[in-house]
Amino acid sequence: MSKSPELEHPQKAFGWAARDASGVLSPFKFSRRATGDKDVKFRVLYCGICHTDIHNVKNEWGVTKFPVVPGHEIIGEVTEVGSKVEKFKVGDKVGVGCLIWSCGSCDNCHGHDENYCHQMVLTYGGRPYPDGSMTYGGYSNIMVVEECFTLRIPDALPLDAAAPLLCAGITVYSPLKFHGLDRPGVHVGVVGLGGLGHVAVKFAKALGVKVTVISTSPGKREEALKHLGADSFLVSTDMSQIQGALGTMDGIIDTVSAVHSLLPLIGLLKTRGKIIIVGAPDKPLQLPALPIIFGANGIYGSCVGGIKETQEMIDFAAKHNITADIEVIPVDYVNTALERLAKGDVKYRFVIDIRKTLEEA
Amino acid sequence: MSKSPELEHPQKAFGWAARDASGVLSPFKFSRRATGDKDVKFRVLYCGICHTDIHNVKNEWGVTKFPVVPGHEIIGEVTEVGSKVEKFKVGDKVGVGCLIWSCGSCDNCHGHDENYCHQMVLTYGGRPYPDGSMTYGGYSNIMVVEECFTLRIPDALPLDAAAPLLCAGITVYSPLKFHGLDRPGVHVGVVGLGGLGHVAVKFAKALGVKVTVISTSPGKREEALKHLGADSFLVSTDMSQIQGALGTMDGIIDTVSAVHSLLPLIGLLKTRGKIIIVGAPDKPLQLPALPIIFGANGIYGSCVGGIKETQEMIDFAAKHNITADIEVIPVDYVNTALERLAKGDVKYRFVIDIRKTLEEA
Repeated sequence: MSKSPELEHPQKAFGWAARDASGVLSPFKFSRRATGDKDVKFRVLYCGICHTDIHNVKNEWGVTKFPVVPGHEIIGEVTEVGSKVEKFKVGDKVGVGCLIWSCGSCDNCHGHDENYCHQMVLTYGGRPYPDGSMTYGGYSNIMVVEECFTLRIPDALPLDAAAPLLCAGITVYSPLKFHGLDRPGVHVGVVGLGGLGHVAVKFAKALGVKVTVISTSPGKREEALKHLGADSFLVSTDMSQIQGALGTMDGIIDTVSAVHSLLPLIGLLKTRGKIIIVGAPDKPLQLPALPIIFGANGIYGSCVGGIKETQEMIDFAAKHNITADIEVIPVDYVNTALERLAKGDVKYRFVIDIRKTLEEA
Repeated sequence: MSKSPELEHPQKAFGWAARDASGVLSPFKFSRRATGDKDVKFRVLYCGICHTDIHNVKNEWGVTKFPVVPGHEIIGEVTEVGSKVEKFKVGDKVGVGCLIWSCGSCDNCHGHDENYCHQMVLTYGGRPYPDGSMTYGGYSNIMVVEECFTLRIPDALPLDAAAPLLCAGITVYSPLKFHGLDRPGVHVGVVGLGGLGHVAVKFAKALGVKVTVISTSPGKREEALKHLGADSFLVSTDMSQIQGALGTMDGIIDTVSAVHSLLPLIGLLKTRGKIIIVGAPDKPLQLPALPIIFGANGIYGSCVGGIKETQEMIDFAAKHNITADIEVIPVDYVNTALERLAKGDVKYRFVIDIRKTLEEA
């Protein structure tokens, strides 16, 4: 089995790739494997831009293998299916999120936690795919993905605004479900009102949960309450506001990827309440032991979700009209979009309209 | 309601108290309240020395009110009961742990989590008892405690070696139960082999769990495996040993109160595995976010247990012959014992034989 990332495949593909840690994307010709028996081939229509894409193209985690074609919030239309594909046919609308393969035989895979399989293959640039080739993501014109990692997109969902659900959506939906933060009577805090946070508010509200947005920006109050429908809003640096909400929350979804203090957040929790960290600070957080001991509190991590749960999340979103708030861009705007995203200058997610600029490839 | 800690009560008592942050204990005369309708009065027979006693007598947390009579691992024999006491009679063997009052009306109290009640009163020196007087602990000859905070000690338990169960025992038993680390097929790590750790190994083994002791001291291997019956032993600083156990543990009970690294411990966890911190480092721990995100792991705190669960733990201990390994001392040895405990020089818990030296008071 060849290990070369340059492995030649029969299907010509075209996308935008970063060639080095400058993180600047430019047009890139590559190839996709032949459509196998269990594969779904689709034309990419839309692809969301995730904050993780910035970490990857700039090699901020030190593991990027260039060239890297980012994109793991992918929506497309099926153009070909393998002979053993049962759930999809040509013309179906489909989605692909952060992973496109797992071993299928470990405890995690058996438990529908493919996202935690130790051999899991990321949709782009993670580890070499089992056939020896690098995986290339959704900033590209076509994808070939196994049926079992392909999601069905219901007609009710707008295709562009549904794209971010495939990463941002499942990232917040999964911990809400797993940690029992998914029913009336529960009070959830959402820290950070960005790509993840704004979708967290929408899902939590649709689940019947009371939602408080916690932000460093007082200016986001009206947006949180009026536009997103949160029940209340706390400025995290205002200790009098924090004081007034001590011990009131069952859980907190913490989407902030900058290093920040956990102590005031722990204070907001009820006994046995949990903070679930879904943002990824690159430096360790300070964890004060006594406060979590005296409150029996937990600090959890969570990373996207399994395929079954992702489909459940999409179907729930379709039923409750949940989509991301997006700004649709052409692919040749992507470098500017990445710069703006790094500064938080987007409400709330960029989505590349792949149709417009890649259809000639 | 008088707030004076010097409030005079009708029952003369005698104990050993620290008068200042030197932490040196010396004989101390004080008084206990009259035995109320719902109170149990008992002669103290044994009292364990907990590491928390050191923090308190030296005012290391800055909240100690002197004089302080420590002791919250208390075993005694009932000498008087109030007219409304139903569960105890004169001559019964009883125990009192870390708390002697809670509000009875909050969610925590309703949920048998009196230990997390925000108005909870510690057995010694915490906040003033509702009648305005300070609480004094079990390094003393008599106690007067409400029936509902008094535990029954079954005949099967030796009274001296049962004393540490009332704090050390419940501190490790409660998280084993709450976090589902209490059944065959589960693999639990126990970090630190001291007063808490050695009891954690005994309870986990009796619950049918596979137990691995994790220690910085290679010399504790034989003790862990042969004497305490652990299934395996890891030296936490030996990366090859850690490497061989990656991803194998459902949970880890972390009893170490010195600041230490969580990263290697997180690596030992299975997906969704948890570390439960029951030791209390006085400085924040470093919490790396990415490892807990990629493993969906949790870092929890836990603080003793509720009264109902403490009785359950004691009954379980009696049934399975679980006691602490102790060194029994006379009360006038207590200052030396505290010094030795601070250096870890005890296997594994000092218990004061209160009968010998206080019976003349």
